Amino acid sequence: MDITFFLNRNLDIPLYQQLYQLFKKNMQDGHIQKGVKLPSKRLLAAQLSISQTTVERTYEQLAAEGYIVSKPRSGWFADYDEIDLIHSEMANNPSIKPVTREKENWIDFHYGNVDSVHFPFSAWRKSMVGSLDQYGQQLHRPGDILGELELRTLIAENLYHSRGVHCRPEQVILGAGNPILLQILCQVLRRDISIGYEDPGFPRSRKIFEMNSMKIIPIPVDEEGICMDGIRKENPSLVYVTPSHQFPLGTVMTFDRRRQLLKWAAENQSFIIEDDYDGEYRYSGQPIPSLQGLDQHERVIFMGTFSKSLLPSLRVSYMVLPSSLLEKGREITSLYKQTVSCHVQLTLVEFIKKGEWQKHINKMRKLYQRKREILLETLQSEMGEQVKVRGGDTGLHIMLDVNSHFNEKELIEKAKEQGVKIYPASPFYTKQPPGNTVFIGFAGVSEADIRAGIKKLKAAWMN
Amino acid sequence: MDITFFLNRNLDIPLYQQLYQLFKKNMQDGHIQKGVKLPSKRLLAAQLSISQTTVERTYEQLAAEGYIVSKPRSGWFADYDEIDLIHSEMANNPSIKPVTREKENWIDFHYGNVDSVHFPFSAWRKSMVGSLDQYGQQLHRPGDILGELELRTLIAENLYHSRGVHCRPEQVILGAGNPILLQILCQVLRRDISIGYEDPGFPRSRKIFEMNSMKIIPIPVDEEGICMDGIRKENPSLVYVTPSHQFPLGTVMTFDRRRQLLKWAAENQSFIIEDDYDGEYRYSGQPIPSLQGLDQHERVIFMGTFSKSLLPSLRVSYMVLPSSLLEKGREITSLYKQTVSCHVQLTLVEFIKKGEWQKHINKMRKLYQRKREILLETLQSEMGEQVKVRGGDTGLHIMLDVNSHFNEKELIEKAKEQGVKIYPASPFYTKQPPGNTVFIGFAGVSEADIRAGIKKLKAAWMN
Repeated sequence: MDITFFLNRNLDIPLYQQLYQLFKKNMQDGHIQKGVKLPSKRLLAAQLSISQTTVERTYEQLAAEGYIVSKPRSGWFADYDEIDLIHSEMANNPSIKPVTREKENWIDFHYGNVDSVHFPFSAWRKSMVGSLDQYGQQLHRPGDILGELELRTLIAENLYHSRGVHCRPEQVILGAGNPILLQILCQVLRRDISIGYEDPGFPRSRKIFEMNSMKIIPIPVDEEGICMDGIRKENPSLVYVTPSHQFPLGTVMTFDRRRQLLKWAAENQSFIIEDDYDGEYRYSGQPIPSLQGLDQHERVIFMGTFSKSLLPSLRVSYMVLPSSLLEKGREITSLYKQTVSCHVQLTLVEFIKKGEWQKHINKMRKLYQRKREILLETLQSEMGEQVKVRGGDTGLHIMLDVNSHFNEKELIEKAKEQGVKIYPASPFYTKQPPGNTVFIGFAGVSEADIRAGIKKLKAAWMN
Repeated sequence: MDITFFLNRNLDIPLYQQLYQLFKKNMQDGHIQKGVKLPSKRLLAAQLSISQTTVERTYEQLAAEGYIVSKPRSGWFADYDEIDLIHSEMANNPSIKPVTREKENWIDFHYGNVDSVHFPFSAWRKSMVGSLDQYGQQLHRPGDILGELELRTLIAENLYHSRGVHCRPEQVILGAGNPILLQILCQVLRRDISIGYEDPGFPRSRKIFEMNSMKIIPIPVDEEGICMDGIRKENPSLVYVTPSHQFPLGTVMTFDRRRQLLKWAAENQSFIIEDDYDGEYRYSGQPIPSLQGLDQHERVIFMGTFSKSLLPSLRVSYMVLPSSLLEKGREITSLYKQTVSCHVQLTLVEFIKKGEWQKHINKMRKLYQRKREILLETLQSEMGEQVKVRGGDTGLHIMLDVNSHFNEKELIEKAKEQGVKIYPASPFYTKQPPGNTVFIGFAGVSEADIRAGIKKLKAAWMN
């Protein structure tokens, strides 16, 4: 394919952004058809007389959003209208219609979903009404900028016991979801800094860093966690990691690797963002304290959420800032005011104080462990040597290497034909995405549907 | 309680001894409170992947030394007395005490407050419980990125009738407060653009634009609204205005000025942000349709909020994007996901559909009009020619020029001495702040306190 895009060097818009927009528009307008091979980075760079790095950033962004996929040893291909990760929730969830109406024909292994049957409605309802009747007057205050102190205190206590996090309530900032907190963090740390980013890693957070003109430095991940060689080579001023359950690989960062990372951060005066997005769901093995808990030099920013441990639609997340960032953190947060509804916060306070939250987590941990076992057993019994599971020890999703003649896109299409939604692994990668690996979340799928779904996958792939 | 202790299997110290030491230290440090229920032997053994016998030996030793007690049929409880700093800290925090306790001695004319007495609790409570029971299942979906379609539809309809805004629900984006929506908008419009900003104007929004490296161009405001000379001279790519009630001056932008501004925007291909922060509270005079409603060329971004018309702590705001910004707007918003809790949105749907919201606004409009009249009358009768009121025709605040030998800072200090909180006008100005003008919000003050407060101000200033 020959591409003659006109890039305007007089615009304030960076070239890679212009190129990204042009590609996207062309794909959406159907000028670049799905499956079309894109020019190599070297060739396109030459054609448009821009640097290969610019082309690379463009391709990375398009890949992160699911517009294109890279196939090993054959290059980049347009993949628009398949899975746009960032838009997938929207696509899956037309408003107001009961979920069942939309999904009755699908078995959807989307990793963003949680179990929808076992939520303790009556207890939540009680806390909600109770907090309204008890704290009604307080709903008229603007409330604490960082979040209600009582909730931040409960979070600090819980984090100490469950994750070994050492913090005072003043270090905890609540926000309506991790992305908002990351945005605040970017403004606290100011832009134009470099960030070492797990490759593969979480595309949404990466995009927010990019939007804030942070320089993303992809760092490979091995069985022990993010690779220290890459970090020591680049010495970024910030590192973003998911140690308790690497996203998407599912590995747990070893104690030794945690110590090395912390030692480096202390020496290099860099900060580490520890995203503990589903740390509650550890099923077995020796628990490893959080990086924040092991840190002796206040280099770690810990992030957590109630999305997995309670409800995604609650939109309650939190971050724990080191002392050196508190003042700036409070200043930036106060510009947005507290983004979590005061009543939702007070409901959570009630819910946690009554022990309902812990009860729920314990229940869900058992439930998800059972779902996970059923998933792994069924995969083993149905497909045996044909598939390899990655990251099955913890969390709510797995990556599955499928040994067949289908590539990632074909695996997903074949599954769709059987009424099963699974997701691509390649968008998580900025370099060398795997060719035949799919991404499976099991939290939102019933035990029966897990069994049925895997059988359908076998039918889709192995026949 | 979820416990993560790191047990070191390489030490010579037996595991039960390590566990015993860790428990003891935690109780002594106050991390495990007296009366807290400890995890069952079985659960803790599983969590730490050690034998139940090890846990049993630990618990027995702790019990022998009086750190924990066993209660029949209910398990083990910490029994070690220790003052928890976190909790004592919490005890003397105002944010979790009833507001009245903290403010009883103050008459606070803060402009961010709303009337705290007339909020329709029982109706809101009903909608809240009703929506939970009716839509419970939906709370498990991530929900529509832009906000629940049903709520966006109701907002679009209401905006058409109340403000003359023409839009489709697809153009409405919900967010947890205006600042978040402005942040999204900055990322939609990209940075390094110039923005014409009312001087005086709203400092919080200005800061958010500055944070996104937009170039702020202060434009003077006259009786008709923002001055066209300044705008035509600078031709900024974006203009931020508060036409229905200029903040802080309180003037209403004339029809003629609106037409000039729209004409300029169309010719210059610039966008206008119309911040309608308290447009519901117009008390008299010919209603002027919103800029968005008069606009023929899709140059206006309309912003509104439920903070004034319902509750600030709800954190529900919205913006209406022109078609040309929809795609990018949806893309950026999807990065943050929807920041308003799904249940809060569904509660609003119920509340609006039942007509409770309109009923509330009508009631509050009458109430605030009466408060405003009492404020103006009392100012007139108490201080007469000594003071000049600006922007008293609409909205929930006024600016007051005080003819005395005190400057702004002194006026505020003198008022404080009398137990009255009023606020400075100078922070709203980037150029030539007035020397003796104060800012007074009356929505959150009772009628009696308005009278008493003004009398105190007279005592503070005129004696």
